[in-house]
Amino acid sequence: MRITQFGEFELIDLIRKNLRVSPKVICGIGDDTAVLPYTKDRYLLFTTDMMAQGVHFTARMKSEAVGYKALACNISDIAAMGGVPTFAVVSIGLPKSTKVSSVEGIYRGMQDLAKDFGVSIVGGDTIKSDKVVINVALLGEVEKNYLVTRNGAKPGDRIFVSGPLGGSLKDGRHLMFVPRVAQARFLVRNFKPSAMMDISDGLAGDLNHILKASKVGAKLDEKSIPRYKGSTLSQALTDGEDFELLFTLSEAKAGKLLNWQEKTKQWFFYPIGLITANCKELILPKGFTHF
Amino acid sequence: MRITQFGEFELIDLIRKNLRVSPKVICGIGDDTAVLPYTKDRYLLFTTDMMAQGVHFTARMKSEAVGYKALACNISDIAAMGGVPTFAVVSIGLPKSTKVSSVEGIYRGMQDLAKDFGVSIVGGDTIKSDKVVINVALLGEVEKNYLVTRNGAKPGDRIFVSGPLGGSLKDGRHLMFVPRVAQARFLVRNFKPSAMMDISDGLAGDLNHILKASKVGAKLDEKSIPRYKGSTLSQALTDGEDFELLFTLSEAKAGKLLNWQEKTKQWFFYPIGLITANCKELILPKGFTHF
Repeated sequence: MRITQFGEFELIDLIRKNLRVSPKVICGIGDDTAVLPYTKDRYLLFTTDMMAQGVHFTARMKSEAVGYKALACNISDIAAMGGVPTFAVVSIGLPKSTKVSSVEGIYRGMQDLAKDFGVSIVGGDTIKSDKVVINVALLGEVEKNYLVTRNGAKPGDRIFVSGPLGGSLKDGRHLMFVPRVAQARFLVRNFKPSAMMDISDGLAGDLNHILKASKVGAKLDEKSIPRYKGSTLSQALTDGEDFELLFTLSEAKAGKLLNWQEKTKQWFFYPIGLITANCKELILPKGFTHF
Repeated sequence: MRITQFGEFELIDLIRKNLRVSPKVICGIGDDTAVLPYTKDRYLLFTTDMMAQGVHFTARMKSEAVGYKALACNISDIAAMGGVPTFAVVSIGLPKSTKVSSVEGIYRGMQDLAKDFGVSIVGGDTIKSDKVVINVALLGEVEKNYLVTRNGAKPGDRIFVSGPLGGSLKDGRHLMFVPRVAQARFLVRNFKPSAMMDISDGLAGDLNHILKASKVGAKLDEKSIPRYKGSTLSQALTDGEDFELLFTLSEAKAGKLLNWQEKTKQWFFYPIGLITANCKELILPKGFTHF
């Protein structure tokens, strides 16, 4: 059987089934990052993302933007656990004909972002390959009581996103998004979410990961879903690569967060629906017919 | 300018020059692994290696062997610092036509080795790509007083390797080598080397990294260089992918190690030459004419 007859998630399930992990591992495959033992008060976070030319970016895109995105996706994963990024190693596969200036551009894009987020690039590997391939592996850390995984959503919790969705690939936002570390840290300090992840595959698909992990259902409210300018509801639900945070809050905390936003006139977070008890249920807005 | 007009190490130097690393980093780009803060008594080690089909392996090689090697190279880097491997994340790029059984094979080869070395595979990424690409990022740890870097070799130190060299790519050993963690741990506990690394690019080239980092020279003794069966001296010096340890010991420790080997009739380590004070000097055996 070929992998095309297999979904990405079936493949990941198959791989995961055969892996043995140490009982020391707090959280292995299946969340935004792995969660590992670290200090008395903190966990170590560990994640990786690979991008290939012709699939995730084209030869015409600016090298700086490609490098930026390769690191940004990983920082977004660390944010989704409530943590801060720390150290990265970068592997890069390059065709012989690659210009030195392109390689410099990729690293410049990465380094600019690394500086903004306090990340040190501490190692890597450079190999020959037919097309450009970039892999970043990133470490982060999170206070034990600030860790948020995907499996804590409870019936009655409100569902939130951290910004308008849709059209990210079309308008090029996916190459320049700012990972939501500041927003995630604000949340874990003040309104600790019951579950959180970042939206990379699209709201509808990614919400399903939280529902599956938390064994709950959800009902989304069509009118509340913030759409990026020019995006339809379908696009907001399925385009992906938004890299906004998707999280759930108890009714009490949700109320406090909404009050805080009302009072400060700062609107960072949008309530978009409710967690329900029926784990077979994902009630999407009427206007949405893709699935 | 194209990267072909540039050597791999010039490219790495160029990249390194433009990176800013936190003062917390004990050792960044330029050794077998990065060395990072961890606990009171131990450092965290962090390394990564990428392998591409058509460059590092062919479609005809067994998937298990390819997966095995992808992890083994990384474990070898951790060993070279005196540490033990702990947690890995694995990215894999796959063409659409890849058989599910090949993917299972790659992970089986990796998992078998991971089990032997106490490594947990805790995360990863799976993407589409034109050819198979595998990236492993591996963490490890080392007691602070056991850490060995490349820059501590001193004039008068003896140079050692942990096994016979040459022909690894030709006879397929490079796909099934056993990373020298046990040997490295034996050394750091009992005869702590002044410098150490693993041989991936060939003895002559890799020794130069130790010489450059330690600002010393070396003189190799032709007759002492252990050759793998069927290998010429040139092959032992330049073939690469041996993944043996290359290390230096003070004269006193070298004497003790050789006595210990004599007494126990266990010959794990081969003395092959001397570190000299002249940092411009790498005196290779007479039979060697490649450079």
